[in-house]
Amino acid sequence: MQKRNVLAGPYLDRASYLRTDPAWFDAALADPESRVLAVWNSRNLVTEGDAPRAALLELAQLPAAHRDGSELILLGRFGARSVFALEFTAAEAPRLGSGTRFEDLRMVATLLPAEDAGLLGYARAMIFWRQRHRFCGVCGASTAAARGGHVRVCTNPVCRHENFPRIDPAIIVLITDGERALLGRQAGWPAGRYSTIAGFVEPGESLEDAVSREVFEETGVHVDSIEYHSSQPWPFPSSLMLGFTAHAVTTDIHLRDQELEDARWFTRAQLAAGHPKIPPNVSISYRLIEDWFNAGGELHLRELQEAASFPALR
Amino acid sequence: MQKRNVLAGPYLDRASYLRTDPAWFDAALADPESRVLAVWNSRNLVTEGDAPRAALLELAQLPAAHRDGSELILLGRFGARSVFALEFTAAEAPRLGSGTRFEDLRMVATLLPAEDAGLLGYARAMIFWRQRHRFCGVCGASTAAARGGHVRVCTNPVCRHENFPRIDPAIIVLITDGERALLGRQAGWPAGRYSTIAGFVEPGESLEDAVSREVFEETGVHVDSIEYHSSQPWPFPSSLMLGFTAHAVTTDIHLRDQELEDARWFTRAQLAAGHPKIPPNVSISYRLIEDWFNAGGELHLRELQEAASFPALR
Repeated sequence: MQKRNVLAGPYLDRASYLRTDPAWFDAALADPESRVLAVWNSRNLVTEGDAPRAALLELAQLPAAHRDGSELILLGRFGARSVFALEFTAAEAPRLGSGTRFEDLRMVATLLPAEDAGLLGYARAMIFWRQRHRFCGVCGASTAAARGGHVRVCTNPVCRHENFPRIDPAIIVLITDGERALLGRQAGWPAGRYSTIAGFVEPGESLEDAVSREVFEETGVHVDSIEYHSSQPWPFPSSLMLGFTAHAVTTDIHLRDQELEDARWFTRAQLAAGHPKIPPNVSISYRLIEDWFNAGGELHLRELQEAASFPALR
Repeated sequence: MQKRNVLAGPYLDRASYLRTDPAWFDAALADPESRVLAVWNSRNLVTEGDAPRAALLELAQLPAAHRDGSELILLGRFGARSVFALEFTAAEAPRLGSGTRFEDLRMVATLLPAEDAGLLGYARAMIFWRQRHRFCGVCGASTAAARGGHVRVCTNPVCRHENFPRIDPAIIVLITDGERALLGRQAGWPAGRYSTIAGFVEPGESLEDAVSREVFEETGVHVDSIEYHSSQPWPFPSSLMLGFTAHAVTTDIHLRDQELEDARWFTRAQLAAGHPKIPPNVSISYRLIEDWFNAGGELHLRELQEAASFPALR
């Protein structure tokens, strides 16, 4: 069975052929069924209440200055509707619709329907990319949107460089020595939290090269049997998480670079007792730890968490 | 056993902790054992002859204007030596050392020792990234090198945005229906060449999402059983190829977007007869096709190619 992580999945039809069809774009702007996802201050607009959903605004609900479509990024067809992303840049959160609020997607992703969570992550990622590519890296001139907002084209007529959405691939790996898992923590994390080892892929590396290098740089441990697990878009702000498992050839820990403040080997019994705390279940790190934990015996991590006696794992 | 593709592998120690040590950088510039890899017009400097190697220049061999180190990008420790990449931008190829020439890495990668090929790919990737990030995408000001050339920092004191090397993840997939493989061709390719289906990952997608979407967009085929194969850095100019296999749920072909001019199902017998021609063996596409072909029986693709009777596969 395919492993589907939070924020991933076929949550919409990207309909990329529509990006090059200006007549379709104009028709979609005039279509009362079209909807807009608002992003402000890196937060997504969702409906209020304990069971939030993506807030799908009609174009008529937008402030007049935003209705011409020039700032909209086409996301695709969500069910029977065309959906767009739109950024608001004012210092104060705009008031858009009733019963809505802006939320950090990391906080609400697992409360949302899976399709809504994926859609909001996509919107957030496109808006972040647009913010960072207002000017051309080759010549410094301003850029303008093209192809439904999926390309930023340099306005300098002798340059015309095209910039496409940027994604930063990062490896994340659950390392075991058979009985124990190697987890580390950064200085700024909540007290007691440990997670799997992660880092950005560098130019000239395969994913497997990046796994070996990052684990050695951060913990001094050498690994082999590097196996792909699953992947997850992680738009906080622009990562693509590439999950792996690996086997430790050495177990002595040396923090060689400054990335981690601590790294340790943990048993399943320690995890079951709630020490260390692990990342929230929106993340692929949780998923990697869960799969290893559950493979080890009769205990299931989510059942432990749902039992009131294991609050530390929440 | 780990699958190692051309251009990948632990060909050098990136020694990333050295990037933040200016004193080490100055010492490396004064060290007569340090070496420089030259890139000009997207080509790498290699030694002449039938068995080329990476041309490792001494700093003293550089034109005087390039010896201050301000343009050098630290790659790491290659054997016992510190190695740097340096771009030349003149219209004419510079004359550097004797018995050297600039070559397209795609043409010479499989002739080079594996370590040299990886090193030259890394150098090429870093130079390309630097070319495209001379100005800040957030504010348009010029950028300056920091951390051994691995960060471009905006010089505008109220911006100071940091730009890191860019890698564009792309999926590439060998699809089978049990007996046949689905291959496609782009209009500009050499006559008769077909290859595996590929495309860039988009924001908000897992790798598996991108595989499903790209295959359907380009060929109209639905797939399942999407399995990771291996990965390859592909600095032509900035890709990271993420290789997969998948099983076709449907087999009717419809070219839904404009990416391919043709896509077809091919048997192993057709491949053994040299039609279609497949990509050169530097690519992960060749590797995906080879692994599928060799799993099917007694014939081995490289042995067929080495036999004079199958020149079409070369």
